[in-house]
Amino acid sequence: MLVEALPYIHELRGRTIVVKYGGSAIAGGDPAGTLASFATDVVLLRAVGVRPVVVHGGGPQIGELMGRLGKVPEFRDGLRVTDAETLEIARMVLVGKVNRELVTAINAHGHLAIGLSGEDAGLLTASPRHPELGFVGDVGSVDADLLRRLVAEDLVPVVATIGSDGQGQAYNINADTAAGALAAALGAHKLVYLTDVEGIRSERDDPSSLLSRLDPDGLDRLVVAGAVAGGMVPKAAACVQAVRAGVGAAHVIDGRSEHALLLELLSDEGVGTMVSLR
Amino acid sequence: MLVEALPYIHELRGRTIVVKYGGSAIAGGDPAGTLASFATDVVLLRAVGVRPVVVHGGGPQIGELMGRLGKVPEFRDGLRVTDAETLEIARMVLVGKVNRELVTAINAHGHLAIGLSGEDAGLLTASPRHPELGFVGDVGSVDADLLRRLVAEDLVPVVATIGSDGQGQAYNINADTAAGALAAALGAHKLVYLTDVEGIRSERDDPSSLLSRLDPDGLDRLVVAGAVAGGMVPKAAACVQAVRAGVGAAHVIDGRSEHALLLELLSDEGVGTMVSLR
Amino acid sequence: MLVEALPYIHELRGRTIVVKYGGSAIAGGDPAGTLASFATDVVLLRAVGVRPVVVHGGGPQIGELMGRLGKVPEFRDGLRVTDAETLEIARMVLVGKVNRELVTAINAHGHLAIGLSGEDAGLLTASPRHPELGFVGDVGSVDADLLRRLVAEDLVPVVATIGSDGQGQAYNINADTAAGALAAALGAHKLVYLTDVEGIRSERDDPSSLLSRLDPDGLDRLVVAGAVAGGMVPKAAACVQAVRAGVGAAHVIDGRSEHALLLELLSDEGVGTMVSLR
Amino acid sequence: MLVEALPYIHELRGRTIVVKYGGSAIAGGDPAGTLASFATDVVLLRAVGVRPVVVHGGGPQIGELMGRLGKVPEFRDGLRVTDAETLEIARMVLVGKVNRELVTAINAHGHLAIGLSGEDAGLLTASPRHPELGFVGDVGSVDADLLRRLVAEDLVPVVATIGSDGQGQAYNINADTAAGALAAALGAHKLVYLTDVEGIRSERDDPSSLLSRLDPDGLDRLVVAGAVAGGMVPKAAACVQAVRAGVGAAHVIDGRSEHALLLELLSDEGVGTMVSLR
Amino acid sequence: MLVEALPYIHELRGRTIVVKYGGSAIAGGDPAGTLASFATDVVLLRAVGVRPVVVHGGGPQIGELMGRLGKVPEFRDGLRVTDAETLEIARMVLVGKVNRELVTAINAHGHLAIGLSGEDAGLLTASPRHPELGFVGDVGSVDADLLRRLVAEDLVPVVATIGSDGQGQAYNINADTAAGALAAALGAHKLVYLTDVEGIRSERDDPSSLLSRLDPDGLDRLVVAGAVAGGMVPKAAACVQAVRAGVGAAHVIDGRSEHALLLELLSDEGVGTMVSLR
Amino acid sequence: MLVEALPYIHELRGRTIVVKYGGSAIAGGDPAGTLASFATDVVLLRAVGVRPVVVHGGGPQIGELMGRLGKVPEFRDGLRVTDAETLEIARMVLVGKVNRELVTAINAHGHLAIGLSGEDAGLLTASPRHPELGFVGDVGSVDADLLRRLVAEDLVPVVATIGSDGQGQAYNINADTAAGALAAALGAHKLVYLTDVEGIRSERDDPSSLLSRLDPDGLDRLVVAGAVAGGMVPKAAACVQAVRAGVGAAHVIDGRSEHALLLELLSDEGVGTMVSLR
Repeated sequence: MLVEALPYIHELRGRTIVVKYGGSAIAGGDPAGTLASFATDVVLLRAVGVRPVVVHGGGPQIGELMGRLGKVPEFRDGLRVTDAETLEIARMVLVGKVNRELVTAINAHGHLAIGLSGEDAGLLTASPRHPELGFVGDVGSVDADLLRRLVAEDLVPVVATIGSDGQGQAYNINADTAAGALAAALGAHKLVYLTDVEGIRSERDDPSSLLSRLDPDGLDRLVVAGAVAGGMVPKAAACVQAVRAGVGAAHVIDGRSEHALLLELLSDEGVGTMVSLR
Repeated sequence: MLVEALPYIHELRGRTIVVKYGGSAIAGGDPAGTLASFATDVVLLRAVGVRPVVVHGGGPQIGELMGRLGKVPEFRDGLRVTDAETLEIARMVLVGKVNRELVTAINAHGHLAIGLSGEDAGLLTASPRHPELGFVGDVGSVDADLLRRLVAEDLVPVVATIGSDGQGQAYNINADTAAGALAAALGAHKLVYLTDVEGIRSERDDPSSLLSRLDPDGLDRLVVAGAVAGGMVPKAAACVQAVRAGVGAAHVIDGRSEHALLLELLSDEGVGTMVSLR
Repeated sequence: MLVEALPYIHELRGRTIVVKYGGSAIAGGDPAGTLASFATDVVLLRAVGVRPVVVHGGGPQIGELMGRLGKVPEFRDGLRVTDAETLEIARMVLVGKVNRELVTAINAHGHLAIGLSGEDAGLLTASPRHPELGFVGDVGSVDADLLRRLVAEDLVPVVATIGSDGQGQAYNINADTAAGALAAALGAHKLVYLTDVEGIRSERDDPSSLLSRLDPDGLDRLVVAGAVAGGMVPKAAACVQAVRAGVGAAHVIDGRSEHALLLELLSDEGVGTMVSLR
Repeated sequence: MLVEALPYIHELRGRTIVVKYGGSAIAGGDPAGTLASFATDVVLLRAVGVRPVVVHGGGPQIGELMGRLGKVPEFRDGLRVTDAETLEIARMVLVGKVNRELVTAINAHGHLAIGLSGEDAGLLTASPRHPELGFVGDVGSVDADLLRRLVAEDLVPVVATIGSDGQGQAYNINADTAAGALAAALGAHKLVYLTDVEGIRSERDDPSSLLSRLDPDGLDRLVVAGAVAGGMVPKAAACVQAVRAGVGAAHVIDGRSEHALLLELLSDEGVGTMVSLR
Repeated sequence: MLVEALPYIHELRGRTIVVKYGGSAIAGGDPAGTLASFATDVVLLRAVGVRPVVVHGGGPQIGELMGRLGKVPEFRDGLRVTDAETLEIARMVLVGKVNRELVTAINAHGHLAIGLSGEDAGLLTASPRHPELGFVGDVGSVDADLLRRLVAEDLVPVVATIGSDGQGQAYNINADTAAGALAAALGAHKLVYLTDVEGIRSERDDPSSLLSRLDPDGLDRLVVAGAVAGGMVPKAAACVQAVRAGVGAAHVIDGRSEHALLLELLSDEGVGTMVSLR
Repeated sequence: MLVEALPYIHELRGRTIVVKYGGSAIAGGDPAGTLASFATDVVLLRAVGVRPVVVHGGGPQIGELMGRLGKVPEFRDGLRVTDAETLEIARMVLVGKVNRELVTAINAHGHLAIGLSGEDAGLLTASPRHPELGFVGDVGSVDADLLRRLVAEDLVPVVATIGSDGQGQAYNINADTAAGALAAALGAHKLVYLTDVEGIRSERDDPSSLLSRLDPDGLDRLVVAGAVAGGMVPKAAACVQAVRAGVGAAHVIDGRSEHALLLELLSDEGVGTMVSLR
C-alpha cells in the first residue's frame, strides 16, 4: 500500500527514469491488456513526481508490414538489412503506429504524453553501422535539451529510435542501445528494460541462476562467457555503458506481469536483475 | 532585398503564423525540390523572429500505400470512408512519413523542427463526422498550450492532423480545417494556405477574376454562389472561421513557385488572395 | 494499492488541503503512536504533490500545565476564561510544545515542516470575543501570503492558532474556527477535521444516523435543531463558512484509526461526513 | 542624521546581519523598554535594505518557569543539566515565550517577523555534548536554505536555538554558539552580539583595557590567557569561528543603551569590540 | 535622526518619486554646493528603497550659450521663440551640459544615474504648441516603459525634456509640464518641485499667506484669481493634472536650503506646499 | 536576397556587434542621406536578432562649435588639447548633438534607440592621458552591465565616449579606442569601423594593396612599418586589442556606400578588411 511506497517516492521524486518498452509486448493488438497496465504505471510514476521517459522498439510490427507489402526481410548477424524502402517502412511503423499506440494509452489519463522520433530537434544523430546493413544506425550524439524541457513541463516523452545524420538521411537505431544513450545523456536516475524474461542469469539455461544484482564488470564477464546471448546482448551492453556513464542503476525485469514497473520501482518487491556500481 | 523586408519583419516579429502545406506538393518524392525551398522559407521566417507552425496533409501518399496494400479507397461526397485499417494506414503515412519528411527538410538547417500529431498532449480532440464515414473526424477542442511553449522555445512544430477522442480512438481530420482551428486557438497573426492554384476567383473558370483581397462575408457569398468549389471549400470555411475568431488575416497562395511563402510575407510582392476583416 | 489512488492523486495534485489535528489526540504522550501515523499521511500527501497545511489545538495540554502551576481553569459557556497568565501558558504550550511535537513527527521524514504561530508575519489577527473571556480571540483578518509561499516551496506549515491584534496583544483563537478561516483565505481544495467521533449525525444519540454527505444549509439546520452540539458546533460553523467561501469540501472524520487521512483522501474508502455544495 | 548613515547603508545594503539578542535583556517583563528600541532598530535596518536575522536565548526565563514548577536547576561547569522535563520546559519558554515576545515587538511595525525554532525544516541539527549534560546539544549541520528564502522575501527570521537530531530528539543549543554557526552558514556580512557589557577587554577587570578591534588570533590568545571568561567564552569562540569561516566581522556591543545596534551599524559612533581579519 | 524617518521610509519604500530640479539652481557653476546636497538626497532616497526620477530644465544655461553665440533670445508671452538653431542650442545645453552635471553629481556616489532625453526610446513625443513659437512642444504621449525598467534596476534616471515628433523633429518641452506628465504616466507616488520660493501663497505678495496644503480645485481657483503667476503657473497646472491622474501628492518646496528634499520626504518637518485630493 | 542572408543571420542571431560610426560622415548636415541608410541597417540587424551597439565620435562638429565660440583649437601630436572649456564644448556636441542625431535617425523606425554617455552608470571611467593634453582620457574600466541589460531589452544603445574619473571629472576619450574597449568588455561577436577609406592596405599609398583579411600580429607589423598611419592608428590598435581579448573579428569598412554595414554582415559581398585570429 501507499505507505510502503513512501520511501521509494522520496528517493525517486523529481528523478528521470528511462523505460524501454519492447515492441513485441504489444504486437498483435495486445490482447492481454498489458499496454493499459504499463500506461497506468507510467502515469502513476509521473503523478508521484517521477519523470518517466519511454523508449520503444517495434521489430515484429515492422516485419508484419513488410510481409503485407511483399518485402522479404533479410538478416545478417541478427540485424535486419535495411534498404531505403525498409527504412521507410520501419519509420512509418515505429513513428506512425507503435509510438502512437503508446501515446494514446498514456493519454487516456490526460494530456500527458508526446510522441517523438529521434529526428525531432536533433534528439538522436546516427551514423551507419556497416555498409552491408544499409540504414542501420549507431547512435552519434544525443541532444537531450528538448527531452529535459518536456519532462520539466510534466510531459511524458515517448521516443521512437529513428536517428538522422547531418544530411537528413534517417537511420533505424536499436531501441535498447538508444535507451541507454538517452539515459546517459539525461543523467537519468534509472534505466529500466521491460522484457519477456525474468532477468539475467549466470547460467543461460538454468532458471535458478537468476541474478538479482551485479555490477558492470560482472555483466561484462557474463557476456564474454556467453551466458548472456541473443537480444539480451545489446541490453547488457547498454546497461553497462549507462551505469558507467553515471546512471544510478539499470534494471532488466519481466514486463509480462501486471504493474511490473510499479512494483519494481515503488515497492519492496524488487524483481529481475539490477546492474549498478558496487 | 533585405531593406524592403524591414517593415514586414517589424510587423511579424514575435507573431505566430500557421502555414498549411499540402501533401500533394511533395507526393512522388518532390523531384522539383519545392520541399527544400519551403523549408528554407520556414527557417528564414523563424530567423527573423516570426514563429511559424506548419500543418500538413498527405492524401496522395495515403492513397499510394493503400494501393500497395491492396485496399480500394472508397469516397462518399469527396470524403474518404475510413475504416479502422484505413485509419491505421493514414496515421502511419501522415505521422510516420509525410510529417517526417517535413521535419527532416527543416532540420537540415539545425535542431529546429519537432513533429507532432494532434494526439500529442491533447493537441486536437476529434468527434466522428458521420457514421458512414468511419474514423473521419471533426475538430473538437484544441489544447494549444504545448504549441505555445514549443514556439516560445524557438522550435518549429510540424503537425499531422490526427485527432483523438476521449477514449483513445484516433480520427483523421481534414488538414485545412485543422489548420484554421489551430490558428484560431493560437491567436495566430496569419494563416497561410500553400496550394496549387493562384488564389480565389470570383468566377470559377475565369483566371482574370482572381481576387487579391476580400472579407469573410464576401468569401461566404462566393461559397454559396458556387464560385468556390472542391478542395477549396474547406479552406474557404477555415479562412472565414479563423478570421472571425481573431486571426489577423488568412492567405491562399500558390505554393508551386520558389519561396512563395517568403515573398508573400516579407516583400511588397503579395500574391494570391488575402481574407481579412475590412 | 497505488493504482486505486491514481484518480485521487490526479484530482488533488497541486491543491492545498487544510487539516485540523486535535490536541487531544496526542495528549498524554501519544502512547498509541497516532502522531507518527498522522505524520506519515501528511508526508505522503506532500510526496504525491498535495499541499497540506496542518492546524492544531491543545486544550488538554494547556489544562495540564495550568494544573502543574496551580492555576484553576475557569470556563464560561464552555470557553476558557483567559487572563494574561493563562494566555502566556496557552501560548507556551501551543507554540512551544504541541506545535513542536507535530513538526518533529513530520520532520522525521526530512526537512519538511515549519512551525508557525498566527502571530508570524501577520498570519492571523484577532479581536477580543467578549470582555469577560479575556484574551479569547475571534479571527480578524488572515494574511495567507506567507503560507502560500511556504507551500509553494514544498514545505508543510504547522500552525498554532495564536492571533495578534494591531498593538501586539496576543489572543488564543479556537483552532477549529481558525482552520476554517485559513482554508477560506487559501482557497483550499479541502478542509479536513480529524476528530474522535465518526462524523456528523442527524440524530445526536443515534450512531446509525451518521451522515456521509450534506450541504451547508443542511448542516446549519442540524445545528439549529440541536443535533450538532458541544465541540462539534465550531467545527460545523467553520465547515459551513469555508464551503460557502469557496473551499471545495469540508470533511469531519475519525482520526483515531490508522492512516485515516490517507484513506479519506486517496482511496475509495471515504469515511466520516463530507460537507459540500450540491 | 541620515546623511551620515549613507555610506554605511551603501555598504550593508542587501547584506545579511545575524544579531544575537540575549534573553536576560528582556527577562522580568522588559520594564526599560529596550525590546521596543531593539525591534525598531531591526525594522529600520530592514527598511534600508539590510537583511537582519535575529537569534536569541532565554536562560533566566527558563530558570523562572522551572522554579515555578518546583524543579531545581542543576549546573555542571556552568552548563544546565538538561533532563527530558527540563528540555520540554526550555523549549516551551524559548519557542513559546521569548521568541514570541521578539516576533511581537517587531511585528508592531508590520507583517515582518517570523519566529522559527532550529527544528523547523532542518535548520539546526544537534548532537549531545556530553552524556552527563543530557539534552544539551552541539551544533551538527545547519540548513540555511529556509532562512535565505525568508530574508529574500523581506521577512525577519527570529530563531530559537533548539536543534533536533535525526530521530526527532530535541536538544537545547547555546544561543551564542548557534548564532555564530548560522552566520557562517549564511555567509553573513556581520555577526553582532548585543550583551550587557561594553565589549572585550584585554584585562578582565580593567575597564580602560576595552579593545575596539582585534583579530581572531588575538581573541584566541585572550581566551587562553583567561582575560575572556564566563558567558563571554562561547561568544568569543563563535566570533573566532565565524570570522574564520568568512563572516566579514563579529561585534560584541552593549545592548543596554537605546538604539545601540543602529548606532553601531549605521553611524560613525562605533562602540564595543569588532573582531575581523587584519 | 533615522528612527524618526522610519515611518516615512515604510510609506515610500518601492515608490516612484518624480523630482523636478530647476536649472536656475545650478546656473553659474553652483558656487553654493546645492547640487552636491541635492545629489546626496537623491542617493539616500534610493538607498532606503525609494525610486527617484529626476527631471530638469536649464533656461539660464540656454540663454547663456545663445548669448555667447550672438543669438538674441526672443520671447512671446514668456515663452522662448525657438527656431531650428535655438532648438539645437537648447538640446546641446540640456542634454549635453545640465543633464551631465546632474548625472555626474549623483554618480559621485556610485554607478547610479543614467541621463536620458525625452527622445530616447520614445519617452516623450511632442507636438508644436503654436506656429509662432517654432519648436516649442506640448507633451504628446509618454512611453514610460524604459523608465520603469531603469528604476526597477535601481538606476536613477535623469531626464532632459526634449521630445520628438513622429518624423524625428525635436521640440523643447517645458520641464515643469513634462515632469507632471512623467509622474502621471509612471503612476508616481509623489511629484516634487524644487524651486526658489517657499511654496504657494493664497495672496501673491503676502509671505504669511503660504499654504501648507490644498487640493487641485483650490489650486485651480488660485490660478484663475491670479494669486499664482509667472513660472509657477505651469507648475501649478502640472500639479493639478498629476494629482487628478492619480499621483498621490505634488509638492512645491524651496530647494535653496540644504537637504530640502530629504527633510520634506523623510522627516516630520514638511515644508512648502502639498497638493493632494482631500 | 533574404535567402542568401540566412546563414549569416543564423551566425549572428543573439550576438552583440559594436559599430563605430564616425562623426565626419554626418558633419555638415548629412546631405547625402548616409545617416538614414546607416540607421536602417542598424534597425534591420536588430530586427533579425542581432544586438547592435553604436559608438560614435564627432571631431568636426566639435571644431565647428569651437570656431563659432571663437575658441582656437590646439593640437599636439594630432590630439586636441582639451582645457575645461573645450571639454564642455566637446561634451555638449557629442552628447547633446551628434548622439541625438543618431538616436533620432534610428528612432524614426520605432522606440528603439537610447543615447548614452560613458558617464552613465559608470559605463566608461577615464584617466588623463598626458598632463599637457588636459582632459583627454584613456579608458580606465568599463562597466558593461547597463549595456548588456539594454540590448537584452532589445534597445539599441548609442554611446558618446565621454568618460568620468572617480571624482566626477569628465574626459574626452577617442571613440575608436572606446569602441574597442566596449566590444572587449561586452564579449562582442564583432567590432565594425565604418570609415571613409576602403580598408587597410599593406602599402600606404597603393590602393591595390588592400588587405581583405589579416591577423593581429600582421596588423601590428603594419603599424610598426608605418603602412598604417593617421586616424587609422587608434583603430588598428583597438582592433588588435579587441580581437586578442576575445572579440570574434574586427572589420574596417567603407561607410560611404549605401547599406555598407548590412552588405558586410549579412551577404556574401564582404568588403574592407577583417582582422581575426587565424
